[in-house]
Amino acid sequence: MVNQRLDRYSTPADWHPGAHWLVQVLWFCAGSPFVAARWLPGSAWRVAMLRVFGAQIGPGCRIKPGLRVKFPWRLQVGQACWLAEDAWIDNLASVRLGDRVCLSQGSYLCTGNHDFRSPDFTLRLGPITIGSDAWVAARAVVAPGSTIGSGAVVALGAVVSGEVPSGVIVRGNPAVVVGDR
Amino acid sequence: MVNQRLDRYSTPADWHPGAHWLVQVLWFCAGSPFVAARWLPGSAWRVAMLRVFGAQIGPGCRIKPGLRVKFPWRLQVGQACWLAEDAWIDNLASVRLGDRVCLSQGSYLCTGNHDFRSPDFTLRLGPITIGSDAWVAARAVVAPGSTIGSGAVVALGAVVSGEVPSGVIVRGNPAVVVGDR
Amino acid sequence: MVNQRLDRYSTPADWHPGAHWLVQVLWFCAGSPFVAARWLPGSAWRVAMLRVFGAQIGPGCRIKPGLRVKFPWRLQVGQACWLAEDAWIDNLASVRLGDRVCLSQGSYLCTGNHDFRSPDFTLRLGPITIGSDAWVAARAVVAPGSTIGSGAVVALGAVVSGEVPSGVIVRGNPAVVVGDR
Repeated sequence: MVNQRLDRYSTPADWHPGAHWLVQVLWFCAGSPFVAARWLPGSAWRVAMLRVFGAQIGPGCRIKPGLRVKFPWRLQVGQACWLAEDAWIDNLASVRLGDRVCLSQGSYLCTGNHDFRSPDFTLRLGPITIGSDAWVAARAVVAPGSTIGSGAVVALGAVVSGEVPSGVIVRGNPAVVVGDR
Repeated sequence: MVNQRLDRYSTPADWHPGAHWLVQVLWFCAGSPFVAARWLPGSAWRVAMLRVFGAQIGPGCRIKPGLRVKFPWRLQVGQACWLAEDAWIDNLASVRLGDRVCLSQGSYLCTGNHDFRSPDFTLRLGPITIGSDAWVAARAVVAPGSTIGSGAVVALGAVVSGEVPSGVIVRGNPAVVVGDR
Repeated sequence: MVNQRLDRYSTPADWHPGAHWLVQVLWFCAGSPFVAARWLPGSAWRVAMLRVFGAQIGPGCRIKPGLRVKFPWRLQVGQACWLAEDAWIDNLASVRLGDRVCLSQGSYLCTGNHDFRSPDFTLRLGPITIGSDAWVAARAVVAPGSTIGSGAVVALGAVVSGEVPSGVIVRGNPAVVVGDR
């Protein structure tokens, strides 16, 4: 067992948030709260705001209130995706969604990990890729570095890590394959 | 495996949100944020606001800040229930709670599903019924169409679907019966 | 099976929230919303605000937006801890963190339980202690009365209760030991 020396922690020298600090502050203080605003209906202006901050979002996407995105400049979304209420894309590393992907309510995509066997608690980023026609159901959690195959279904509240093959259904915590779509 | 043609999606012809669009907008922009307001203590005015928007709520109920209700006009709550902080009743379909039901912090009742074997990704609503004296503990998740028997206990963080018999304790994800109350 | 007579519920005679009602109201209406404010960057002022309300927080701690603390006067945090976005310390009973503890995004520490075999639904508080160098990963849930040993890792989305030995990794719901750190 090692200590995690958070008191000595620093982000890796080769890591960069990927945007000018001023853009980060603007996103944090203005862009992000507006995208997440619960009292404001509508989708198009949320899409537009994310694009202003660098997200690549295909046509026909629908974004609901409460969506949280860490770094929009590291988000790629295909066509006709649905990002539901309170979905949380915590993308220190890049997150890529194919076409017609559905992220349901309160789902959480986590890209930040730490090397817990190093006393430096080194940041280990793991991008997430979700194939076309996949569905991440409500309150599901996707671990850093995961790949969800096209057409896969991650069931309600499942906690998934690693590689989910195309067209399967995974369920539980830890999630396991329980069937084919 | 089928594609989910979100780009062609439409809600079923026989589905209706159950309230005039103006009522929906008022609920979304004004009613819901006030019920959820975290900075405002007190329960009675939250109950009153939900009733104004059509919820049936029995006497003696206590509602905490952060409660989220999708469609109050599809909510029936018995007497002396507790709806705790950040409980989320996502009731596209009806949700019925008996008497003395406790929904703890951050619990989530999900009534919306999709037919993921149809390319139309057809909306499949599943009402939720929770019997008297049942306790849905904190961060638990209840799937569309579930029935929780009277007096049952859904443990902390459990993810439950289907029918939970009266008087049992369920736990885990997926939740299984682990004992009697 | 027993009924839970929420309609007759009262907190135990020997229980006290631990602060003057005026302090509680100030915390609820002003302190807590400021600590949790998402649109405001920075950590030091969050630490300062928690200390004003009685939390003991060691030097070098970093607190992110969205942190929720029930009763700061029942919170003890060692040196160089990280409390991440949307971590929720629901401390009706005391919560003690050692040094260099990391609570990741959306983790939830629950200290309130009820005796569900008593018709009084008696409040059963369970303090939580987390040893130095432990890591509670994102969206993990810790049950009332749990003790997390020093250096332990509670994995992403795990739901843990009871005693977690030092230096192990626990995972799943319910969480089980899956390895050593």
